[in-house]
Amino acid sequence: MNKKPEQATALDLPMVSPLPDDTQAYFDLCQDKLGMVPNVLQAYAFDIDKLNAFTAMYNDIMLAGSGLSKLEREMIAVVVSSINRCWYCQVAHGAAVRALSGDPALGEAMVMNFRAANLDTRQLAMLEFAEHLTKASAETTESDRQALRDAGFSDRDIFDIASVTGFFNMTNRVASAIDMRPNPDYHAQAR
Amino acid sequence: MNKKPEQATALDLPMVSPLPDDTQAYFDLCQDKLGMVPNVLQAYAFDIDKLNAFTAMYNDIMLAGSGLSKLEREMIAVVVSSINRCWYCQVAHGAAVRALSGDPALGEAMVMNFRAANLDTRQLAMLEFAEHLTKASAETTESDRQALRDAGFSDRDIFDIASVTGFFNMTNRVASAIDMRPNPDYHAQAR
Amino acid sequence: MNKKPEQATALDLPMVSPLPDDTQAYFDLCQDKLGMVPNVLQAYAFDIDKLNAFTAMYNDIMLAGSGLSKLEREMIAVVVSSINRCWYCQVAHGAAVRALSGDPALGEAMVMNFRAANLDTRQLAMLEFAEHLTKASAETTESDRQALRDAGFSDRDIFDIASVTGFFNMTNRVASAIDMRPNPDYHAQAR
Amino acid sequence: MNKKPEQATALDLPMVSPLPDDTQAYFDLCQDKLGMVPNVLQAYAFDIDKLNAFTAMYNDIMLAGSGLSKLEREMIAVVVSSINRCWYCQVAHGAAVRALSGDPALGEAMVMNFRAANLDTRQLAMLEFAEHLTKASAETTESDRQALRDAGFSDRDIFDIASVTGFFNMTNRVASAIDMRPNPDYHAQAR
Amino acid sequence: MNKKPEQATALDLPMVSPLPDDTQAYFDLCQDKLGMVPNVLQAYAFDIDKLNAFTAMYNDIMLAGSGLSKLEREMIAVVVSSINRCWYCQVAHGAAVRALSGDPALGEAMVMNFRAANLDTRQLAMLEFAEHLTKASAETTESDRQALRDAGFSDRDIFDIASVTGFFNMTNRVASAIDMRPNPDYHAQAR
Amino acid sequence: MNKKPEQATALDLPMVSPLPDDTQAYFDLCQDKLGMVPNVLQAYAFDIDKLNAFTAMYNDIMLAGSGLSKLEREMIAVVVSSINRCWYCQVAHGAAVRALSGDPALGEAMVMNFRAANLDTRQLAMLEFAEHLTKASAETTESDRQALRDAGFSDRDIFDIASVTGFFNMTNRVASAIDMRPNPDYHAQAR
Repeated sequence: MNKKPEQATALDLPMVSPLPDDTQAYFDLCQDKLGMVPNVLQAYAFDIDKLNAFTAMYNDIMLAGSGLSKLEREMIAVVVSSINRCWYCQVAHGAAVRALSGDPALGEAMVMNFRAANLDTRQLAMLEFAEHLTKASAETTESDRQALRDAGFSDRDIFDIASVTGFFNMTNRVASAIDMRPNPDYHAQAR
Repeated sequence: MNKKPEQATALDLPMVSPLPDDTQAYFDLCQDKLGMVPNVLQAYAFDIDKLNAFTAMYNDIMLAGSGLSKLEREMIAVVVSSINRCWYCQVAHGAAVRALSGDPALGEAMVMNFRAANLDTRQLAMLEFAEHLTKASAETTESDRQALRDAGFSDRDIFDIASVTGFFNMTNRVASAIDMRPNPDYHAQAR
Repeated sequence: MNKKPEQATALDLPMVSPLPDDTQAYFDLCQDKLGMVPNVLQAYAFDIDKLNAFTAMYNDIMLAGSGLSKLEREMIAVVVSSINRCWYCQVAHGAAVRALSGDPALGEAMVMNFRAANLDTRQLAMLEFAEHLTKASAETTESDRQALRDAGFSDRDIFDIASVTGFFNMTNRVASAIDMRPNPDYHAQAR
Repeated sequence: MNKKPEQATALDLPMVSPLPDDTQAYFDLCQDKLGMVPNVLQAYAFDIDKLNAFTAMYNDIMLAGSGLSKLEREMIAVVVSSINRCWYCQVAHGAAVRALSGDPALGEAMVMNFRAANLDTRQLAMLEFAEHLTKASAETTESDRQALRDAGFSDRDIFDIASVTGFFNMTNRVASAIDMRPNPDYHAQAR
Repeated sequence: MNKKPEQATALDLPMVSPLPDDTQAYFDLCQDKLGMVPNVLQAYAFDIDKLNAFTAMYNDIMLAGSGLSKLEREMIAVVVSSINRCWYCQVAHGAAVRALSGDPALGEAMVMNFRAANLDTRQLAMLEFAEHLTKASAETTESDRQALRDAGFSDRDIFDIASVTGFFNMTNRVASAIDMRPNPDYHAQAR
Repeated sequence: MNKKPEQATALDLPMVSPLPDDTQAYFDLCQDKLGMVPNVLQAYAFDIDKLNAFTAMYNDIMLAGSGLSKLEREMIAVVVSSINRCWYCQVAHGAAVRALSGDPALGEAMVMNFRAANLDTRQLAMLEFAEHLTKASAETTESDRQALRDAGFSDRDIFDIASVTGFFNMTNRVASAIDMRPNPDYHAQAR
């Protein structure tokens, strides 16, 4: 069903060829471990500086140490992407929620309506903040931050929730702007 | 009028102390050239990896070679920040538009209503795309990209418009989430 | 992950017991053919007149003869339910789109963003009309109907598109109002 | 002022002719008791199965036994139709509110702004729930249902409020989609 | 049904007593010609300067010479008041549309959905501009003004459409802010 | 940057010529005291009755005695104009806030996001009411008025807040409708 699935995006921006050794090694590693090179990486590979800036920030936000688990960060990613209705990010990160949680229904709920999931107080507060920040960031006040502290989050955790929420508000718009297409492999994963 | 202007944000996340030599040198350079260290840098300096990831992406998107001029990228930054009503980004990047253009009224128009500015077809198309992507990215279609091509933009330029738009949709939310406060120096600049 | 999956809804409205013979036979048929009794039927079974009125209208709208295929009616169902973010209807009818089309990605696209699907002109016009009717029905004008006729739909087809769109705007609200929970069996179907 | 008042809708879907005896008898009864055959019935009469499914559900929801009075159900009908700005339903059911209540101003307030009416706590809670469900059903939570219970409604009443609200969210969209025109007789009734 | 109909608003701001002779004469004239003193006049009569400023602007905008007929100005008044759901203005000016047009259904359509009325091109363009200005004035561009010129309006007429639209966007908010209550006499007028 | 700055608006409505003596004297006074004749006055001067009605209401609302200071009324003016993104009013009244307060950052915050300003409880309540009235006046209830009373406002003050808010909801729409252009002198004032 994907539009021209052989292309990562709607733009005519071919990857640097040949790729620098570092990049090629990174893409080979993806192929080995994930069975694919995620199209987002291919989309940025027309300019290696942009690719590197993107992956450095991605890895820091989603994978570095944090009071938020990797699953929690993926849950935020999907909720934000669902509000923005980003096809690429809902598909790719929805699969990540299913895989990390072992709960396919949880992945679907993050896409469809996070309020349908059976979340504890902490995770509900986290996702409500991400929703608020995505829809009406200008109305954020100290009481919103305090609600997170009351739910058990530290100031550092608040920064991390804000970072993940912000990051996907960026990538959702880049992906939708250029019609980024998810690798077909995601759809059947961890169902 | 700023809330506790001595603090960069509402979070209790002090800067690493002492700063690594590289970071200290970068902050010294800012102080020399700008007369201040922008608070956004101080806000990220509780974690040097995050600071570096942020500045690397910022520098690539706003300062690297592009078919968009630095002024055009700042215009997008302010229009996006105005839609999201981000206090920090409107103040800091509004000043940049005034300084780079030498036209204080242009900076105000980007903040208040870009349609009031006397823009050429190309810049109007660019800002309308940034607005659309900020407000309703999910409804982007090939005709939106074609409108940019018809206004003279290349596919690479489209990527860059999307990147700047996305980036400020990220930073607006991070800044609002943590109540980032602009350095007072910006207000009177280039009036 | 479902909240109290043993209950069909959040309301304390037990099924009539014993069920009338007709109803029991219908539920047995569901169990045989689908492997479950859809929770929506259990939700209405506290009052057999309401159950019968609902199933009569459902069967007429979704299964009776029409210029729209059953798959097309299910596509409308999911697009409407996605706009309204109805958990029950997205899960149940998303599964139906996957099953009827044999294209799991199509089912996901109806949930996530129908514009990402590779639709022909006719089906795109159909879903755009359903979206418009769901979001802003008061602004429907003759030109909207004419757009459907231009895409090949008859006046009878227009009635049917309106009926399916209307029906799910009803059920989405009933399901969300009472927290109707989808049978867990749907999640893994036709992936 | 009505567009082509001689036609019930904008679609070219003539009534079955002759009507089946049952249907003809029902229409004759309407003519006798109401002085007209409501156009909604004429609009569905191109297909008797659809007409019957519609009238069966309508009669169950609006006329069968319920903890909600018939007037209260009509009040919900008008408030929902006002939010959706459905011309047909506001005219026809606005007349019903005026007639059932003997209070013409109440009928106008349901159309114009239900908060202007002098409602008791119970009816205000009922209409606020109907409004919420119409505008943002996905955000319904247990606290919304509890607010209804606190105002004196049973779980069965909650189902009925949801059903009426859902039903008019359906018919509003069908009526707007096909430009259904109210019988002119309604305007002057019960003023 | 009106809340405390004996009071013009929810504020405790009694009329100047005794009224100045001019004001008393004006109120007596209203009583003679309309059978009532409209509550909006009573609401402003706690301060005669405010009352005079209001009536001077009202009379200029609604009654002075214009390329728009008095009926057309009342039609704009009701459409704007309907978008803003102002109880007072819909009741009072809805009555005016019915009286001036001799077409009760036209008055109802202005309240319920102006697109349901059978308007000519000129009046439709006028009301669409008023709607646009009420909902999204910041997006007005030269093409919107040109659409009015193409429909036969002069630049002076455009000013007048803007003035009436603006005026009711003011009074709607004042009336809703202070809960201004319409005189009960309006409801049954010109039905 | 202003479009044709030599013209006050996009309409072809020249000032009465010669101006009546009173008007000329008023314009001369403006030129003396402000160094310019504000374009809004020039815009209305095609019809002296309209100009007089406008200035009478303006002077009463913004300059007459009130429990609100002139600065507070200007703060409301800018917040309303910012929500409506009116170029003329944000420029002209933003300058007034800067001048009256002696705090340039306060003027910017009223334009960009009033929640960023360090306001006391009273002024925050005042601006939140103005925002609410601008965005959703139909949902105003007694509890909104009570919140103002609790913040120290009298019923007369509530009327004045409503009047200023209403007035700029009018002028914003007139200014945007006719593309009213601010005098260039405002931009650099009181920075």
